[in-house]
Amino acid sequence: MHTQSATILGANAYRFADGGTGASADLIERRRRRLGASSPLFYRTPFEPVRGVGAHLFDEDGADYLDVYNNVAAVGHAHPRVVAAVTAQAALLNTHTRYLSEAIVDYADELLATMPGELGRIMFTCTGSEANDLALRIARAATGGTGVIITETAYHGNTEMVTGISPALGDGVRLGENVWTVPAPRETQAGQPDVAFARAVADAIEQMSERDVRPAALIVDTIFSSDGIFAEPFGLLAPAVQVVRAAGGIFIADEVQPGFGRTGSAFWGFARHGAVPELVTMGKPMGNGYPIAAVVGRGDVLDAFAAQTPYFNTFAGSNVAIAAATAVLEIIIDEGLQLNASTVGTYFREQLAAVRRAHPIIDDVRGDGLFIGVELAGSDALEQAGAGARIVNALRQRRILTSVCGPHGNVLKLRPPLVFTRADVDRFIEAFDAVLTEDAATAAV
Amino acid sequence: MHTQSATILGANAYRFADGGTGASADLIERRRRRLGASSPLFYRTPFEPVRGVGAHLFDEDGADYLDVYNNVAAVGHAHPRVVAAVTAQAALLNTHTRYLSEAIVDYADELLATMPGELGRIMFTCTGSEANDLALRIARAATGGTGVIITETAYHGNTEMVTGISPALGDGVRLGENVWTVPAPRETQAGQPDVAFARAVADAIEQMSERDVRPAALIVDTIFSSDGIFAEPFGLLAPAVQVVRAAGGIFIADEVQPGFGRTGSAFWGFARHGAVPELVTMGKPMGNGYPIAAVVGRGDVLDAFAAQTPYFNTFAGSNVAIAAATAVLEIIIDEGLQLNASTVGTYFREQLAAVRRAHPIIDDVRGDGLFIGVELAGSDALEQAGAGARIVNALRQRRILTSVCGPHGNVLKLRPPLVFTRADVDRFIEAFDAVLTEDAATAAV
Repeated sequence: MHTQSATILGANAYRFADGGTGASADLIERRRRRLGASSPLFYRTPFEPVRGVGAHLFDEDGADYLDVYNNVAAVGHAHPRVVAAVTAQAALLNTHTRYLSEAIVDYADELLATMPGELGRIMFTCTGSEANDLALRIARAATGGTGVIITETAYHGNTEMVTGISPALGDGVRLGENVWTVPAPRETQAGQPDVAFARAVADAIEQMSERDVRPAALIVDTIFSSDGIFAEPFGLLAPAVQVVRAAGGIFIADEVQPGFGRTGSAFWGFARHGAVPELVTMGKPMGNGYPIAAVVGRGDVLDAFAAQTPYFNTFAGSNVAIAAATAVLEIIIDEGLQLNASTVGTYFREQLAAVRRAHPIIDDVRGDGLFIGVELAGSDALEQAGAGARIVNALRQRRILTSVCGPHGNVLKLRPPLVFTRADVDRFIEAFDAVLTEDAATAAV
Repeated sequence: MHTQSATILGANAYRFADGGTGASADLIERRRRRLGASSPLFYRTPFEPVRGVGAHLFDEDGADYLDVYNNVAAVGHAHPRVVAAVTAQAALLNTHTRYLSEAIVDYADELLATMPGELGRIMFTCTGSEANDLALRIARAATGGTGVIITETAYHGNTEMVTGISPALGDGVRLGENVWTVPAPRETQAGQPDVAFARAVADAIEQMSERDVRPAALIVDTIFSSDGIFAEPFGLLAPAVQVVRAAGGIFIADEVQPGFGRTGSAFWGFARHGAVPELVTMGKPMGNGYPIAAVVGRGDVLDAFAAQTPYFNTFAGSNVAIAAATAVLEIIIDEGLQLNASTVGTYFREQLAAVRRAHPIIDDVRGDGLFIGVELAGSDALEQAGAGARIVNALRQRRILTSVCGPHGNVLKLRPPLVFTRADVDRFIEAFDAVLTEDAATAAV
């Protein structure tokens, strides 16, 4: 499955470890027997962290690994304020939302204050996959349509329904019924990317119409995380959203990756684009690792679904989940992490631009805030995927943890905890420069 | 939507609160604006717990409510050993399964030791819904079939796919494609329930065949929780499982509610039935409230899916989830909670049998361990639903928390934490007797 090897799941970079020695080899074999082939490990030499602080992970010997990948621990690994909030609430009560709780309403108020006023309603889930699954159902109920437009290398989760809108999962996975793909908007493509993207969406809607399919939604990750990270220009999505609305569909902003201040420029990715979605989905960083996710939306859009279908999710919005999420939101604000993402992210891209000048293998550096893509060159898809896998594994040997995205797995996905510092950037840059120098030397042999 | 009002979601018993006074009325209104109509509250006078211990919940005035409903907090609300495990791990690290971790493999070994040896593989998810969604996809990949057989009032979760196998959600929700329903096996139905159930499954398979549909799976909650709780006789499922296997399908045991020792007679509900499933799904009590769930299965059954489809679930099997689940499993064993479920459950049913003799409104008492159904009489579905709602709300006024199940919402669902004591039973029985006496007096007026 060649395509799959070049997707975000990156069988090349993350294939089952054939490395590991001694105790680690035994553990890898025990793990393979229990968890099977559906659960691959990162890196040729898998990594076993035992502790984390800020943007740093440590192995059992105390060696310090720089985390340039994990967006879930957005406010930093094991943030003491989150740990304290989880502990205090767990010691009191952790139950479901069919009982009254003031904390969940207070949290909803605080969270929704970060968004335009018309987005006034929230439904809690446990995972981003559940949130996207629910959002699609809401879109279909609200519009009466069934057609869904996604990008070509989209990833929206792991349930049956959202697997069907996740071509990033590879050739083994079929698109769902009435799902149309459009190219992600690259700044380098011919014409203005916003206009080209709107035109592609219009074409998809025309094809739907030819098959008597009415559009339900355009759903995109607002920074195109799995497509390869496309952040520019601001306002990029607005024309496409107008097109989908004119045809009776709605816009779902998948903020699972870009949300919660990561892009620096805005708290939510959609806010960079001058388009207010009917529905917003969120997850990963929301509880800094405690499973909590949500669909936020306009009341009138949610009402059609609510009238048809009861929705209950046992663990969603439970007391401890809300305690964790409340702490995370307050930390992002109190510690100024959106601003940090902006300033450190800008510094990071500047330093990467300097590395690029010295290393022709770097084709492009792009992104916003602490969500940065570094595209590696290659004469074809296979060579590109090989470059991604090689560099990611070489960085891991230097205790730098990262990963790849994009259709050919050749875009380094630099997406660290939001507490990333300039010193962390410097450490990455030094290792990256060394890795690329070594890589070029090996290639020249 | 009449059917819906009589399902497990019980709009009658749990409809939006029109009660509440003062601060509580304000909170209910704020909640309605934020969470909307999809998130109903239990009870006409909603309950706001602030603390829990064992099988007891407390409001802010310190009043003690007996919890006869919550299976998630299986080892007791806020169990100190679970809280300690969660706290210790959260303070160290909480990350995903693409890094190596010994604890997840150790937990898999401990959990799978409770099952027959051929069930040797596990895939972690966050919720029971995700587990059932995944199990259906695995079943289809393994068998090449698409047909699914469920019971008439089944509930298997909240994603698009498993909503389609959850008729308990009511008339507003359509069954999925190629889904057939069969009546749940009641001991009181004509003939032997095991034979009748197997015959219904055979009929469904014949209907599939007439439409060129090949069976993928029979999936049932092994104590038929939402159908009204049918536990007898032992071995009940074995003939139906043989039928589905002979037709090329597999058996999925949904253990989200009956699993982890609740039935007293066995650690897993399927073990009561003399049939080893190809796939087992589990969830709710697994982390005592921390979101963790799983699909366990035979390696050969999981392999077909793994070959087609990568599966990654960000929060599933994370370090803290595994710490919580490990503590829960060890507590169930160390505190002898399966035995407690058996002995206290037997005592509970004996006491209920005595209440039944005094109150003709009780039609039946059934179940196993601490999973008990008390069926209330009524001349038609509407009267039955009314009885369920009336009794549940009257119990709540006496600080006893429970709920209903069954197609007409007239089966009290008594499913307390596994630490429930004889004294807790006595307290329930006293209140229940008083409620039924009062109810009969009101009806007589």
